[in-house]
Amino acid sequence: MQDTKTIYEKQGFGGRSGFGRKSALILVDFVNGFVDPDILGSIEIARAASETLELLENFRALQLPIAHTRVVFDDQGANHNVFTLRVPALKKLTEDAFESQIVDALKPKDKELVIRKQSASAFFSTGLSDWLTFGAVDTCVIVGCTTSGCIRASVVDSMQHNYKTVVVNDCVADRAQAPHEANLFDIQQKYADVLSKKDVIVQLQKLK
Amino acid sequence: MQDTKTIYEKQGFGGRSGFGRKSALILVDFVNGFVDPDILGSIEIARAASETLELLENFRALQLPIAHTRVVFDDQGANHNVFTLRVPALKKLTEDAFESQIVDALKPKDKELVIRKQSASAFFSTGLSDWLTFGAVDTCVIVGCTTSGCIRASVVDSMQHNYKTVVVNDCVADRAQAPHEANLFDIQQKYADVLSKKDVIVQLQKLK
Amino acid sequence: MQDTKTIYEKQGFGGRSGFGRKSALILVDFVNGFVDPDILGSIEIARAASETLELLENFRALQLPIAHTRVVFDDQGANHNVFTLRVPALKKLTEDAFESQIVDALKPKDKELVIRKQSASAFFSTGLSDWLTFGAVDTCVIVGCTTSGCIRASVVDSMQHNYKTVVVNDCVADRAQAPHEANLFDIQQKYADVLSKKDVIVQLQKLK
Amino acid sequence: MQDTKTIYEKQGFGGRSGFGRKSALILVDFVNGFVDPDILGSIEIARAASETLELLENFRALQLPIAHTRVVFDDQGANHNVFTLRVPALKKLTEDAFESQIVDALKPKDKELVIRKQSASAFFSTGLSDWLTFGAVDTCVIVGCTTSGCIRASVVDSMQHNYKTVVVNDCVADRAQAPHEANLFDIQQKYADVLSKKDVIVQLQKLK
Repeated sequence: MQDTKTIYEKQGFGGRSGFGRKSALILVDFVNGFVDPDILGSIEIARAASETLELLENFRALQLPIAHTRVVFDDQGANHNVFTLRVPALKKLTEDAFESQIVDALKPKDKELVIRKQSASAFFSTGLSDWLTFGAVDTCVIVGCTTSGCIRASVVDSMQHNYKTVVVNDCVADRAQAPHEANLFDIQQKYADVLSKKDVIVQLQKLK
Repeated sequence: MQDTKTIYEKQGFGGRSGFGRKSALILVDFVNGFVDPDILGSIEIARAASETLELLENFRALQLPIAHTRVVFDDQGANHNVFTLRVPALKKLTEDAFESQIVDALKPKDKELVIRKQSASAFFSTGLSDWLTFGAVDTCVIVGCTTSGCIRASVVDSMQHNYKTVVVNDCVADRAQAPHEANLFDIQQKYADVLSKKDVIVQLQKLK
Repeated sequence: MQDTKTIYEKQGFGGRSGFGRKSALILVDFVNGFVDPDILGSIEIARAASETLELLENFRALQLPIAHTRVVFDDQGANHNVFTLRVPALKKLTEDAFESQIVDALKPKDKELVIRKQSASAFFSTGLSDWLTFGAVDTCVIVGCTTSGCIRASVVDSMQHNYKTVVVNDCVADRAQAPHEANLFDIQQKYADVLSKKDVIVQLQKLK
Repeated sequence: MQDTKTIYEKQGFGGRSGFGRKSALILVDFVNGFVDPDILGSIEIARAASETLELLENFRALQLPIAHTRVVFDDQGANHNVFTLRVPALKKLTEDAFESQIVDALKPKDKELVIRKQSASAFFSTGLSDWLTFGAVDTCVIVGCTTSGCIRASVVDSMQHNYKTVVVNDCVADRAQAPHEANLFDIQQKYADVLSKKDVIVQLQKLK
C-alpha cells in the first residue's frame, strides 16, 4: 500500500476540495435490509447507522438540507433492470417491504427529501442535483452504505456534478472490511475529503 | 479476501449479465498522459493499450460501434471543476497537448466517436448513452484506464443506463496494482462481467 | 402561417423520422387534475384521454412496453421547485390526491411502468430513457397532455435521447386551442412525426 | 388569444420566478448559420444578435459567468442523430464550417465557456448545469435563437434544473414571427420570466 501512496502522491493525487458555503447531508440507503447482517447488511453498517444520528441532529439543528435514499423496486417488476439481473436479492426491496424502510433511528422528518432509487448512485436519474440547486447547496456530506457500492457511486457523481464532497468515515460501512478500505482510499485520492464525524461537526459550526 | 467472497456469495452478489444482441467498444482515456509512467500512467497501462489493438480490430472487422474518450480541459480554464481542484495535474490535458492525444496505436478511424470529457465517467454529461441508443446497442465492452478511476466510474454508469456491461481484464490497468484488483473485485460482484480478451472475441464471433 | 411554412420548407425542416423496430407507448399525465376542466384540464383533454384507450389496448395486445406518468409533489413540500414557484396550483398534486391519480379508463396494469415526476418532461430525472434501453425500444409513441406543456417537453427529450418519436394527434390536447396548434406545428417541423391514431395502429400492425 | 389568457389565468399559470443572487448569461446558437437569412437564419435573428452585445458587455463588466453554445456535428458523421435525420441541413454545421462559428460581434473571450451541442437544449448532455453549480449560479438569463427551437428547449431545461430563468425578449428571435410569439407565450405562462433587455440590466445593477 505504501508503494501505491507514493505513486499517487508523485502524480499529484490526494488533494482536498474542502467545504463551500452551504452543506447538505445525503443519507444513502440506511434501510433495514442493508443494515441487518442476515439480509444484505453487516454489524459495521448497523454501527455506522447509530453513529449517524448525532450528525443528522446537527444538520437538523442548523436547518440545512437533508436527503435520504431508499432502494425501491416495483412489486410487479415493472422497473427491474440490469442491477436486479445481476443481484436478484435486490428485488425484495419493494415499497412496503420491511427491507426497504429507513431504519427507525434515522426516520425522515417533514421537509426532508426521500428519494426512491433503482441504481447505485443517489444522483442517478433521481433529480437530487436539481434539488440541491434549488437549495443553493455547494457541498455534499455523504453517509450510509455500502462504501464499495452506493456510497462510492454517489460520491463520484457528487463530484462530477461539481459539489465539494465529504465522506464521513465513522458513518459509512460495508458488508466486508477490505472493500470498505480500498474504496475509502480511492475516494480520498480522487473524489472527496474523508473526515471524521467530529471534524465535520466542527466545520459545520464554523460555517454557521 | 476469502471471507469477503463468502459474505458476498451468501448475500447473492456476483451474478452475470452476459452479452445482448449488439455490442459497442468503449475505449476510456487511452491518451498519452495516462499511458506514460512519467506523466499520469504506468507500465501496466501501456501494456493494456497494446493488448487492446487486437480487440479494436475485431470490433472494426465486425462493423460494431466504437467510441473513444479523451480528457480535455479548456486552455484558459473555462471548464475547470472540482476534479481539477482536487487533481490539478489534470489541467495540462488541453485540446492540443501531447498528454491528451489518443495513443498512436489506437488512433480513431472515421465514423468512430471521439468524446471529450472533464469527469471520471465516459457517460457523464457526454451524450454517450444517447449515441448508443441511436446505434441500437445493448452491451458495452469497456477497456482503458484507470481501473480504479475512469473505468470504475464508466462501468457503474454503463450498468445504471441498463447496458449489459463487460470489462476486459487484459485491457484495463491502473497506476498501482492494489486498486486495480480491488476495483475489479467490486465490478465483478456488482456491475459487470469481467472477462479475458480471448473470451470476449469468442463471444463476438458467436453473435455475428 | 403559409409564410412560416414556406420559410421552414426552404430551410430544410419538416423531415420525417418514421418508426424503428420496437415502439413503446408513453402516456403523459393523463391524471384527473389535468383532464377535468374545473381543475387544470379541458374538454379537449378529456376527449384525448377517451381516444387513447383504443391505442393503449393495441399496445397491450402487442405486448409492447407502456409507461404512464403522473405529476406527484410531496405532501410536506420537500420537493417543491421552480415549477411550483411559478405555478402554485401544481402543489395539490400529491401522492394520494384525486387530482394526481391516473384516470380510471387508462389505469395502469401490472408490468406497466408508472413514473412520478415533478417537471415538464417525462424523461427529466425519471430514468425513462434507461428503462427504454432495457426494453430495447427505439421508437416512442407519445400521447397525453398538455400539447404545449408536458407533451412538448417530453417530445423534445425523446428526440434528444435519439428515439424516433411519434405524436398521436387524436390523443394529445391542451387547455386552449391556439397553443395546441402552435406546438404541433413546432413538433412536426423539428422533433417528431405527428400522425393520426389510425395511422399509428396500421404501422404497429405492420411491424408486428 | 384573449380566451387562452383567461383560461391560463383562471387555472393559476403566469406566475413569476424572479432573479436569485447570481445570474449567468447563456447565449444559445448565435452562430453565422442561424443568423444569416440565406442559411438557417432571418433578419430578426441578426437584429437579436446585435441587441445582445450591450447585454453581454454588462455581464462582462459585472464579472458574471457567460456561456456560449454552438451546434457542431462531426465531419464524418460519427455523431449524427435523430435531429440530423429530420433536419439534414444541420449536418453542415461542422467544427470548422463558417456556419457553426459564433458571430464576430459576440466572439467569446477567455474564461467564457463554449459548449458544442448536437441537440436543441443547451443543457442536454453538455454539463452546463454542472458548470453553473461550480459557479454558484441560481439564475439563467437566456438569449439567442431560435425562440421556437433551441431557446424553448433550453428554457424548459433551465427551469427543470431549478434555475430561476429569464428570457430577454429583445435578444431572442426566430425564422418566422408566429412561432416566435407562440413560444414566448408558452414560456411566460409556464417556465420563465420574459423581460426587456432594459429591465434585465436594471435588475443586474441592483443585485451587484
